Amino acid sequence: MPLYLEDLVVGKLYGSDEVLVSDESIVEFARSYDPQPFHLDAEAAKRSVFGELVASGWQTAALTMRLRVTGELKLAGGWIGLAVEELKWPNPVRPGDRLRATTEVIEKRVSSSRPDRGVIKVRTTTYNQRDDVVFITQSVQLVLRREIPSP
Amino acid sequence: MPLYLEDLVVGKLYGSDEVLVSDESIVEFARSYDPQPFHLDAEAAKRSVFGELVASGWQTAALTMRLRVTGELKLAGGWIGLAVEELKWPNPVRPGDRLRATTEVIEKRVSSSRPDRGVIKVRTTTYNQRDDVVFITQSVQLVLRREIPSP
Repeated sequence: MPLYLEDLVVGKLYGSDEVLVSDESIVEFARSYDPQPFHLDAEAAKRSVFGELVASGWQTAALTMRLRVTGELKLAGGWIGLAVEELKWPNPVRPGDRLRATTEVIEKRVSSSRPDRGVIKVRTTTYNQRDDVVFITQSVQLVLRREIPSP
Repeated sequence: MPLYLEDLVVGKLYGSDEVLVSDESIVEFARSYDPQPFHLDAEAAKRSVFGELVASGWQTAALTMRLRVTGELKLAGGWIGLAVEELKWPNPVRPGDRLRATTEVIEKRVSSSRPDRGVIKVRTTTYNQRDDVVFITQSVQLVLRREIPSP
């Protein structure tokens, strides 16, 4: 059931499923999108500042998008970003980590230019299986209104 | 040849190769990381706010990382982000688009906590084959110093 602007509860934490980050997916993502030694090869990673194989931060960001889209906060019209205000990676993601995310709706309002749409600000925090925070993002998203005002 | 802090020229634009965004790569990325109808299926995308199949914004961000890593600004120690200050997607990326990116070094300084490292601020703009801007990101990155001061 998609959630419309009217359904969203400011201050509520919306949860997600869990996603396993495998060695193979780290290396496959890195080959296509972030071909650096510390994402491609465990041996080379030992000689990097990380000291071990870690996922590209962009893979963590993309996995967080997956956790948002498939999680409890199913936005009517889909997850369509208007702006990203913050991205942080406080801890690295390693092979075998299991990630989950919680998203808080911080603000909601009707769009001033398009009264059939709403604008929300959300903050998503992504955790690993030890509850370490691996990613934080705050963004402004579009969401449809259930009740479209008559012109 | 990797570039150290001393080699970087503030105000210079560093270029990149080009990358082709295929239908298949858009759908493949979406299946793993952003499973929404407007990224997965051309027919369903017609009924979305985009009106056509478009790439996930996170794929555009990740492709931009690829263009940075493989481009002219090869940072010593690799591209290691400390913070992202801005992400914007002014225009969508469509199947068949060819992307390239330019990166400007905006600021550079020696790290206050680690004198063997430098900290730089960079701004990358990603263009399609019609020179439309499809992505802008500004970030703070780590870079090694060529000359490590004696203790």
